[in-house]
Amino acid sequence: MKFELIHQSKKSKARVGKIHTPHGIINTPNFVAVGTNGTLKGIDNVTVTQIGLELMFCNTYHLLLQPGREVVREAGGLHKFIHRTLPIITDSGGFQVFSLAYGSVANELKSKGTKKIDGQVLDISEDGVLFRSYRDGSKILLTPESSIEAQKDFGADIIIPFDELPPYHIEKHLLKESLARTHRWEIRSLNTHLKNPNGQAIYAVIHGGVDDELRKESALTLREHPFDGFAIGGSVGKTKEEMITMISSLKPYIPEEKPNHLLGIADLSSLEACVPLGIDTFDASYPTKAARHGALLTKNGAIKITKSIYAKKYEPIEKDCTCPTCQNYTLAYLSHLFKAKELTALTLASIHNLHFMCKLMHSFREKILNDEI
Amino acid sequence: MKFELIHQSKKSKARVGKIHTPHGIINTPNFVAVGTNGTLKGIDNVTVTQIGLELMFCNTYHLLLQPGREVVREAGGLHKFIHRTLPIITDSGGFQVFSLAYGSVANELKSKGTKKIDGQVLDISEDGVLFRSYRDGSKILLTPESSIEAQKDFGADIIIPFDELPPYHIEKHLLKESLARTHRWEIRSLNTHLKNPNGQAIYAVIHGGVDDELRKESALTLREHPFDGFAIGGSVGKTKEEMITMISSLKPYIPEEKPNHLLGIADLSSLEACVPLGIDTFDASYPTKAARHGALLTKNGAIKITKSIYAKKYEPIEKDCTCPTCQNYTLAYLSHLFKAKELTALTLASIHNLHFMCKLMHSFREKILNDEI
Repeated sequence: MKFELIHQSKKSKARVGKIHTPHGIINTPNFVAVGTNGTLKGIDNVTVTQIGLELMFCNTYHLLLQPGREVVREAGGLHKFIHRTLPIITDSGGFQVFSLAYGSVANELKSKGTKKIDGQVLDISEDGVLFRSYRDGSKILLTPESSIEAQKDFGADIIIPFDELPPYHIEKHLLKESLARTHRWEIRSLNTHLKNPNGQAIYAVIHGGVDDELRKESALTLREHPFDGFAIGGSVGKTKEEMITMISSLKPYIPEEKPNHLLGIADLSSLEACVPLGIDTFDASYPTKAARHGALLTKNGAIKITKSIYAKKYEPIEKDCTCPTCQNYTLAYLSHLFKAKELTALTLASIHNLHFMCKLMHSFREKILNDEI
Repeated sequence: MKFELIHQSKKSKARVGKIHTPHGIINTPNFVAVGTNGTLKGIDNVTVTQIGLELMFCNTYHLLLQPGREVVREAGGLHKFIHRTLPIITDSGGFQVFSLAYGSVANELKSKGTKKIDGQVLDISEDGVLFRSYRDGSKILLTPESSIEAQKDFGADIIIPFDELPPYHIEKHLLKESLARTHRWEIRSLNTHLKNPNGQAIYAVIHGGVDDELRKESALTLREHPFDGFAIGGSVGKTKEEMITMISSLKPYIPEEKPNHLLGIADLSSLEACVPLGIDTFDASYPTKAARHGALLTKNGAIKITKSIYAKKYEPIEKDCTCPTCQNYTLAYLSHLFKAKELTALTLASIHNLHFMCKLMHSFREKILNDEI
C-alpha cells in the first residue's frame, strides 16, 4: 500500500490523497460503505462498483460465524468469494465482540454505565475474548493472532488489529488498563501480520476514549510501530462537539505521511466537521440503513419518502442526480413502493443514498483541491 | 393489437406466434411474470427488461388500493409510472376480490367448500362487488365499468374484463348462475372498453370450472363478441390431470386466430403439458416466490440453496447460464447470503429464476419451430 498526498488545503488540515492498494486506488477523503456479510444490504457488488464505491467494509466477526474462514479461504479470499474487484477493508471482530459485552454503542451511551457484560461473552483475558456464537452456540476464542489469521484468509486490502472497545462510561484507571492491553494486542496483531504481509496493509487503532492525554499516548505508542495507517476507534464521545474536540487535539500526533480512518462515523455533519481536520476515510452503515427506512439523501438534507407530499411528485429524488434510481424512477413511484412494502424500494433507495455519498465525497475532494475547505 | 401466427407445430397443437402491442412484441408461447404492485418482488423494472421479460402482469386490485387510480393516471399511465417500456397486462381485480370472499385458491381447494364469505367482502350483486379496503377500511364498489375505467387509467397493453371467480367447491346450478353473470359482466366490461379502446386489447375470460359443458358454453358465448384474445380463468381443477383434461376439451372452442392465456399457472410441469395444447401465454408468481424461498431453477429441477452441499460450490447455479447472477456469483456466495438473511440473496435468486423462465420459453419456441413439440 502506498499513500500519495495530492493536495494539502491552504485553508484547513483537509487533504486530497490516493491510497494505492492491490485492488486499485481509493481517492481520499472518501466514504466507506459497510457490507457486513460481504454485501451491502439490498445492493449486489457489481452494482456497488458501478455506483463508484472505492472501499467496502466487511466485518470479520460476522464472516467468521457465517460462512466461516474455511469457505472464504477455499474460495480464494473475500474478493473472489463476494465478487468485488475494488478494495476491501475488514475489521478485527473486536468491535462486535465488545458490543456483545457492553451493548451497542448507542445503548451503552444511554445506559450511564449500568450495562454489564452479558451472557454471550464468556471471558476476557490477556489472551483474548471467549464468546458464544449466536448461530450455533459454539465457543469461539478471538485473539489478536486468530483475528489476523482470519483476516489473512479473507485477504482484504486493509486489515485492523484486534483491540478492546472499552465503554464510554469507564473510570480512568480502567480505561488506562484497557488501553495498555489494546496496545499489547495491536502489537501482537502487527507481529502476526508481518509474518505474512500478503500484500495487505494494517492500520493501527488509536484508543483512549475522550481523554486527550490517553489519545495522545495511544498515537505516540502506536506510531513507533510499522503500521501502514491509523484508525481512530473506541468511543469518540457522546456529542459531536466532544468528538471534534478529541480529534482536533489528537490529529497532530497522527503521522501525516500515512492514511487515517475514522471508524464508524460518516453522517453528513460529522463529514463536514472532520474533513477539514484532515480525516481521510470514514465508514458507516447509516446511508444504506437510512435508505431502508425511507430517508433519501439530498443536497438539502434527507427527505422522508413516505410523507404524503411525495405521492404525486413525478420527478427524480434529485433532478441532476445521475444514479440509476434517479435516472429511471420518480419520487411518486418510490413513495408507492415504500407504501406497498416492496423489496425493490429498499434497493432503489439504497442505490441513491450510496451514490449520493460517493458524489458528496467527490465534491469534498474538488473543494479541497480549490482550497475552499 | 395483432396476433401473428409464425408456426403451427406438425406434432401437436403447439404454436409459435407474435403478439404485436403498442409497447412491442410478445413472442409466444411465453411466460408472464407477476409484478403485483408495479414491480416484481426484489427486481427493478429496468433489470426486468434487461433479463428479457416481454410481458409483465400487474394487479388492478392492489394498484387501486395503493397508489390509487389518480396517481397512476396523473403519472401518464402505468408504463410511465413504473418505468416499464415493454408490454403490460392488468387483470380486473375480480380474482383478488373473490379470493377475499372465498380464501385463496389453495386454501379453498383444501377446505372442501366449508369456507364462507368473510368480512372484507360486504356485498355481491348484479352491479358488482362491494368490499372493504384492507388499507384504510373504506368501502369500494368494483363493477365491470369501474374495473375497466381503472384499467383505462393504468393503460396496460392487454386488459381483462371483470369476472366472478366461483370456488372449486360449488354446486352445478350455482356455477351456471355464476357463469351467466360473469358473461353479463364481461360484456359490460367489453362495452365500457369499446367506448375508449385507447390502443388497448381486451381478453375475454372463459369460465366454467372443471365442467366441460360449461367451459364449452362459455367459450361459444364469449367468442361471439369482439374480444381480442381469450384467457382461461376460474378454477382449473384440483390436480394437473383435471386441468389438462379440461383444457384439452375446451381448446377447440377457442378461436385459433386470436391469442390465448392461461391465468395463474406457469409451473414447469404445467408448461410442459400446456404448451403442446396450444396455450400462448402463462402467468405465475411462482418463479420469483420460489427464489425468495431459496429454490433456484435449473434444467435438472429446482435446487434448495440452503442445503449444506452448496456452501462450498464455487461455481454458478448453472454453468452455461448468461444471467447476471450466474455471470458474477457462485452457489457458495448465494448460500452464504441466504444463510445470513441478506436482501441481496432474494434479488440475485429472483433474477436467475426470471431469466431461467425467459430462456425456457425461448427453448419451447425453438422446439416448436422444429416440430419437436
